[in-house]
Amino acid sequence: MMKDNNINKLQQAMLLQSIDAVIIPGTDPHGSEYLANHWQEMNFVSNFTGEAGTIVVTQESSALWTDSRFFLQAPQEIESQGTILMKEGLNDTPTITQWLSTQLKENATVSVNGLLFSANKFLSLKKELEHYNIQLINRGDCVDSIWNNRPELPNTPVFLLPRTSVGETTNQKLNKIRQKMQQEEIKAWLATALDDIAYMFNLRGADIDFNPVFMSYAIIEQNSAKLFIDREKISPIIEAKLNKYNVEVRPYNEVFSYIESLNTPLAMDMNKANYYIYNVAATNAGAQHLTSPVSLMKAIKNNVELAGIRKAMIRDGVAMVHFLKWLEDNINTQITELDVVDKLHYFRTQQDCFVGESFPTIAAYAQNAAIVHYTPTQESNATLQPKGYLLLDSGAQYLDGTTDITRTIPLGIVSTDQRMNYTLVFKGMVALSNIKFPKHTRGAQLDVLARQFLWQNYKNYGHGTGHGVGHFLNVHEGPHSIRMQENPVELQPGMIISNEPGYYKANSHGIRIENLIAVASGREVDFNKFYHFDTLTLCPIDLKTLVRQHITANEVAWINSYHQMVFKKLAPMLDETHQKWLYKKCSKYV
Amino acid sequence: MMKDNNINKLQQAMLLQSIDAVIIPGTDPHGSEYLANHWQEMNFVSNFTGEAGTIVVTQESSALWTDSRFFLQAPQEIESQGTILMKEGLNDTPTITQWLSTQLKENATVSVNGLLFSANKFLSLKKELEHYNIQLINRGDCVDSIWNNRPELPNTPVFLLPRTSVGETTNQKLNKIRQKMQQEEIKAWLATALDDIAYMFNLRGADIDFNPVFMSYAIIEQNSAKLFIDREKISPIIEAKLNKYNVEVRPYNEVFSYIESLNTPLAMDMNKANYYIYNVAATNAGAQHLTSPVSLMKAIKNNVELAGIRKAMIRDGVAMVHFLKWLEDNINTQITELDVVDKLHYFRTQQDCFVGESFPTIAAYAQNAAIVHYTPTQESNATLQPKGYLLLDSGAQYLDGTTDITRTIPLGIVSTDQRMNYTLVFKGMVALSNIKFPKHTRGAQLDVLARQFLWQNYKNYGHGTGHGVGHFLNVHEGPHSIRMQENPVELQPGMIISNEPGYYKANSHGIRIENLIAVASGREVDFNKFYHFDTLTLCPIDLKTLVRQHITANEVAWINSYHQMVFKKLAPMLDETHQKWLYKKCSKYV
Repeated sequence: MMKDNNINKLQQAMLLQSIDAVIIPGTDPHGSEYLANHWQEMNFVSNFTGEAGTIVVTQESSALWTDSRFFLQAPQEIESQGTILMKEGLNDTPTITQWLSTQLKENATVSVNGLLFSANKFLSLKKELEHYNIQLINRGDCVDSIWNNRPELPNTPVFLLPRTSVGETTNQKLNKIRQKMQQEEIKAWLATALDDIAYMFNLRGADIDFNPVFMSYAIIEQNSAKLFIDREKISPIIEAKLNKYNVEVRPYNEVFSYIESLNTPLAMDMNKANYYIYNVAATNAGAQHLTSPVSLMKAIKNNVELAGIRKAMIRDGVAMVHFLKWLEDNINTQITELDVVDKLHYFRTQQDCFVGESFPTIAAYAQNAAIVHYTPTQESNATLQPKGYLLLDSGAQYLDGTTDITRTIPLGIVSTDQRMNYTLVFKGMVALSNIKFPKHTRGAQLDVLARQFLWQNYKNYGHGTGHGVGHFLNVHEGPHSIRMQENPVELQPGMIISNEPGYYKANSHGIRIENLIAVASGREVDFNKFYHFDTLTLCPIDLKTLVRQHITANEVAWINSYHQMVFKKLAPMLDETHQKWLYKKCSKYV
Repeated sequence: MMKDNNINKLQQAMLLQSIDAVIIPGTDPHGSEYLANHWQEMNFVSNFTGEAGTIVVTQESSALWTDSRFFLQAPQEIESQGTILMKEGLNDTPTITQWLSTQLKENATVSVNGLLFSANKFLSLKKELEHYNIQLINRGDCVDSIWNNRPELPNTPVFLLPRTSVGETTNQKLNKIRQKMQQEEIKAWLATALDDIAYMFNLRGADIDFNPVFMSYAIIEQNSAKLFIDREKISPIIEAKLNKYNVEVRPYNEVFSYIESLNTPLAMDMNKANYYIYNVAATNAGAQHLTSPVSLMKAIKNNVELAGIRKAMIRDGVAMVHFLKWLEDNINTQITELDVVDKLHYFRTQQDCFVGESFPTIAAYAQNAAIVHYTPTQESNATLQPKGYLLLDSGAQYLDGTTDITRTIPLGIVSTDQRMNYTLVFKGMVALSNIKFPKHTRGAQLDVLARQFLWQNYKNYGHGTGHGVGHFLNVHEGPHSIRMQENPVELQPGMIISNEPGYYKANSHGIRIENLIAVASGREVDFNKFYHFDTLTLCPIDLKTLVRQHITANEVAWINSYHQMVFKKLAPMLDETHQKWLYKKCSKYV
């Protein structure tokens, strides 16, 4: 037991601090989906390279909780340190609290880094552990002392988006936020979500992969605002602009001392703000819960943002057309999934305003596509053959918008069963695209439209149908959604959402078709205001593998109208060869 | 101001008791939908004859809150007493609290009869009024002293349903309830909803119109149960049966003294149990909230109940066929809406096991059908003409089941616009009938299926799509529903629910088609268990006024299969003339 591994080192550090166990989740102080290297504590301690997991270490043992995506990969990575895998979602898997209650004695002390737990998560975990007479404390970052050469906090410069590309000044946004604060009788609000902060100050950064955000906090008061961010990230020009709006720039870590100087309770979203910062406020002048007033503002895109996204969609569509033609031309040349990722990346880099991918590209051939969230690695990397489907889910950040598109591409002969499933998914995607619905409708009411044809065949998919998408921001953005689970947020004009039904048959194939759509305002009849969806994504959808007899006249009309729009918008940006190719792909379906 | 009307009398009674205002809602101590005459205090005081309303009386004024169904009728009825109409649902209508705050001085006293408010309603109203320094008290029944010849509490005998018609003994039901109580660590549970009590003791009564229930409370403990009901309603044979299950019968009003004798907290549904009884428990050994453990048990019908309902449906279908043929034969004989009500009643009385209507029959001709919840009166009674639609929504209580059916019947030529609306409603009804859906699906997820075709034409309806229905019990029964609003209750096999989309065009026409359907268990594929609906209602649906080109092959298949079942099940019960008529109505749609 004298192996000098990270878990042993951590156990020694715990001993010195009289800590009986630590819990290390895979997140950062801002609840981010993707993490800067500096915050990959869970991965550092566990050796696990997956994106989702929590490691718990006691003096005697360690265990890693993760979900089914990683059940194959995790054991190989964590076994050398003797860590047990806890499979989330299985009935007989204990919760962290249950497991700790079997590992620790009464009056034991469990420590966490309060920066990595939301206030509500910490408080409920504390309560659960108290049930077993185990104490939960916030002793800070146990990992730092054992992490040699820990990556620094990211330090990329931020840049300002011009009003012409965002449609509203920081001042206008802050005024709206302050109005909402006044309605709730709140004098100071703490923003902790990085995309909320980027949105309200019209700033973008590159601290985190895929999401153009920067490490920061912000506090908005009625007559002033503070942005807490490392000074070297902010140019004098940007600082001057911010000062003009009465926004003061302060160092990232000064947020804590500033909160201690407040003489008014501080509002924050207790499901998102970390416990450490909550505790600073709570032990000073008080903390209170407030759902982020920015969340809904950010989700409802203004006309400038929508126009930007439409331009980004044209560029993304052009890149997709180049890729799809290249794939068709080269299918017999031993292309691999990783080649697909690289080539698609290359075509996107050729587009104006391209910043980077909006998430890791999923290029999944044949049975690999049945693994939800599959991304190819050197080990799994399949070589494409001229048969079956390639599922390709990708997206990009452009300076004027964020894209997210999935196409399921037949590479040659496809079995009848797979074609039928493709047809059912297609029909669901079209039914959702086509619906008109009255004001006040929620996503959960519309979800069945995308699933109904699969359901009629005793099939379903385990993920949501639609997630919100940011404007040159996070590709996954709340507060709205289209999924089976209830979400009280109503769909409102200007919201962008994905429309991505799928079907997955283990060890066989996976199908998903995804467009981004925007809620738009339509007719008002007899006091009923109706909305509909405008499709934003511009890229042909394969029709060869549709089972024609199951396609209705309405669906034919939709696809022809969609392909007509795709051709009209993309053709002017293409050379003659690609125009001809696209013309064929967009030709009338009969 | 010396008119000797009921409001004046009430004001004098209030003066003697130093009460500044009273609030009298239209309900009874059990939160019933239909009221025994004894409990129609709101109607007695206000002169208003509608079913839904609340009257508030101060020394200076009085006001009646009611909904849009009664905006025309109410003013005529209440104006002679100088009562103001408060239109619920309009933005500028004050709440009762807001209005009282403008009518009363600080430290005023408002009194209610605690029997007529749920515990939670009373407590929240008390809090609201405190905001204005107005005190809410429970001074009991102010109305009784001024109500000469007040109808007695109903006193009809109850009868026992044999196990062969309900499928489970009281003992089995009590055991299930006690298991749920044990899970929640509850020692005593108070049942206040009359249909819950009727269900668990397999008893039925006739204290209230349309709902075969009886005035009662029940308290279930781990080793005993008490049924509080007027003794003369219970025969010695029934009492002996109940005693066998360790159920003791006590007088209705003894429930209060029994609660005072308890030395354990009493659980009850605080949204349903009245404040008076809650307060007795709360000031004794304590009260706690528990959603009725009977509610879900009662909603999930067992095979015996389902078989009973299917038999009742045959009888109800036979009555409907007789009625529809009679209507067709006599349309030119100056039939009125009230004649329709009477004739349909007559045909139902000819059926075995018929007990009565399950709600007041809605027979609404032409524009009368645009008024939701219309029931014909002597004043409104329209004469049918051989054109346009008759909307007929009716139902019956049979000893083995409860029915609820709506047909929209063309009486001759119908306009293209009306036919189109009929077609859209029909398509929605079929789409919901046809859906297969996975376990754990909630009604709000399926609701759009019934509305989608209307929505595509900028149309909608303002009521829910489906309500639960009892087994020879209340025609409106929770906890499940199919409606736009979220309801967390999942649809489960054995639940019966209505499927009744509609469309209403003011001053023109109204359309609704309603079948009862039952959730049934189907195939399990890849760990996904699928359910579907079995249609229970047996009565032909008009096809003449469908717009053929909008009917899909799937819809044709559904209607032909449905009509085939209707003919097969009803024909053996009909004479040759009616068989021939039905054969024609059920002939293949092409």
